[in-house]
Amino acid sequence: MRKVAIVGIGQTPVGEHWDASIRMLAADAVQAALDDAQVKTVDALYVGNAYGASFSSQSQIGALVADYAGLGGIEAFTCEAGDASGGAALRTGYLAVASGAVETALVIGVEKSSDTVSTAHVRARNVSLDADFEAVHGATLPALAALLMRRYMHEYGVDLSAFENFSINAHANGGKNAKAMYRNQIKPGAFARAPMVSDPINLFDSAPDADGAAAVILTTAERAADLVPTPVEIIASAAATDTMTLHERSNLLHLRAVASSVAKAYQQAGVANGDIDLFELHDAFTIVSALTLEAAGFATPGEGWRLAKDGQIGLTGALPISTFGGLKSRGNPVGATGIYQAVEAVLQLRGAAGANQVANARIAMIQSLGGLASTAITHILSV
Amino acid sequence: MRKVAIVGIGQTPVGEHWDASIRMLAADAVQAALDDAQVKTVDALYVGNAYGASFSSQSQIGALVADYAGLGGIEAFTCEAGDASGGAALRTGYLAVASGAVETALVIGVEKSSDTVSTAHVRARNVSLDADFEAVHGATLPALAALLMRRYMHEYGVDLSAFENFSINAHANGGKNAKAMYRNQIKPGAFARAPMVSDPINLFDSAPDADGAAAVILTTAERAADLVPTPVEIIASAAATDTMTLHERSNLLHLRAVASSVAKAYQQAGVANGDIDLFELHDAFTIVSALTLEAAGFATPGEGWRLAKDGQIGLTGALPISTFGGLKSRGNPVGATGIYQAVEAVLQLRGAAGANQVANARIAMIQSLGGLASTAITHILSV
Repeated sequence: MRKVAIVGIGQTPVGEHWDASIRMLAADAVQAALDDAQVKTVDALYVGNAYGASFSSQSQIGALVADYAGLGGIEAFTCEAGDASGGAALRTGYLAVASGAVETALVIGVEKSSDTVSTAHVRARNVSLDADFEAVHGATLPALAALLMRRYMHEYGVDLSAFENFSINAHANGGKNAKAMYRNQIKPGAFARAPMVSDPINLFDSAPDADGAAAVILTTAERAADLVPTPVEIIASAAATDTMTLHERSNLLHLRAVASSVAKAYQQAGVANGDIDLFELHDAFTIVSALTLEAAGFATPGEGWRLAKDGQIGLTGALPISTFGGLKSRGNPVGATGIYQAVEAVLQLRGAAGANQVANARIAMIQSLGGLASTAITHILSV
Repeated sequence: MRKVAIVGIGQTPVGEHWDASIRMLAADAVQAALDDAQVKTVDALYVGNAYGASFSSQSQIGALVADYAGLGGIEAFTCEAGDASGGAALRTGYLAVASGAVETALVIGVEKSSDTVSTAHVRARNVSLDADFEAVHGATLPALAALLMRRYMHEYGVDLSAFENFSINAHANGGKNAKAMYRNQIKPGAFARAPMVSDPINLFDSAPDADGAAAVILTTAERAADLVPTPVEIIASAAATDTMTLHERSNLLHLRAVASSVAKAYQQAGVANGDIDLFELHDAFTIVSALTLEAAGFATPGEGWRLAKDGQIGLTGALPISTFGGLKSRGNPVGATGIYQAVEAVLQLRGAAGANQVANARIAMIQSLGGLASTAITHILSV
């Protein structure tokens, strides 16, 4: 199995791109990644996209982007796992290069969330839930996350304020990221007063859907050493699943797919929790951050929120998370988010993160979740 | 790079399954494949599905199927390339096993076309065309294929009857396949009298959208030899793309992605046209079959239809195609079709094709197309 490294990165700003279509966003990120790696083309393109069909009436985005970005007939297709689509595409690119079938692969995540708005957006977004047992009854991702959060608060006797530091941290970091969607700061106490979205999940708790595209270029670690000064190696790539629906889980507060994919990743990389210098987790809601920290072994059950409360998740803390703002402040261009995480982790490991730099970052973990962790895809990157 | 073999196959009948959902069809095919390989579980699941979001309001089908089929938390995600989704999933499974990351992978194709009907079906089906330059103007796949067919007839001076033998052959073979959707025979001359769908494409020319699921189990060739009496090796796996839209092609009648993916596949496998014992091509329309035979090098430009006319595509011909009925008679459960092709090729290579058997079949080529060959994914299988 060949070792795989990232030699190029590109990203568009995250936000509402009313003047750009899927192909335009994607081509911008592709060009930025090609420029960064100083290569002219690649052998294959794997696209992470979650809602092209339902947001934009557009699938077969692999061929679309290969064509529009001028990549001239190369292999291309799309990988989809709901909101974990970016992770799925990254894993496919990793497998392609690791196998020896492909020398250089471009992995791009792209989403055009603003192609639908209002209730049509909610319906389009709901396709990644269980159509027959969740979406048909009107459940939405925030509504289901709210059930988890309420249960957590009940089970562990914590109130809303336990979660506010996740959002405060995300916006503190996103405020310094020129690509982030919401760069405003959240003041202590403001979280508790924010308008409810799906009680107890409020406006300052929910990550915003957004438009954006991000890209990474993968090649063998051997070739990478000749190409760029700081290749970033992918030292683990692991995926796992859980039940689609919450009602089938024996323990609502244990994210089994997170635990399983992290365990597999640690085994592959030969690392443990203490080795992770930063963790770009899927902070779609603060409850997901808390449960992820617990399932990944950074905190015992019921204690994940304390890492935020105690300031350990900041850039200078024991476990920095959402270092460029995360889904909450950088924004959540859904199928692209997993690739934004990869781009941000590479910036950290190159020491090129500027005001968002985590000092001496050597090992970064990134994780894409689909649904409420029905799919979890984890990668560990290292310099 | 590890060699990869198919050790298990499963398929549901193709047709209108009003009583079964995506997950039910998929689970039936999964169970059949597990039974066939005599294994209890696998390490990963890759799903080919083209229109889950637009037909069935269901994405994240990897996790859904892994869950419902009782595969207990394994890695799973979906691969999509329009109508070439089955091929994309097969390629991903191949890469996963070839790389060494995964020991045993289940690749399933599933589609529930009957979840939408009438004009809603047309809209849902159109997402794999170019949304901004084709679908928005009301173009459909049959309408675009009709443009190609008209151009072919004009350019090469042939009439409709040049194409009828593709459909006659498909139904002759499909009539003997218990899993096929339409087992009726098409009589010579009936083709020319069939009602028009999109002139000159008529009812007997167009492959019917259908429901169905098919599955194959992949593992290393080394392990396969211990597991089953007749492992079928995947000796080539190759993908390529072309422009999304017809109007950007310099030569409308050359399917560039077909030519490119076949060339790559031949190079990997070390075979040539003359070595192919049967070819499961993407016969969504007879014009696509003719153009595919030409682009793949089995006929010179303008002569592809002669292979049909001269009876060379039959089970005892020089190049059998659509040996179980192809998309036209077996039916086109879109994202599943590429995996049906794999299942059928394995049956042929095992010598287990019954009345559909191609004598002494040793090398089979299968090919999935997205759009009008905007994506082409080719595999070559061998015993």
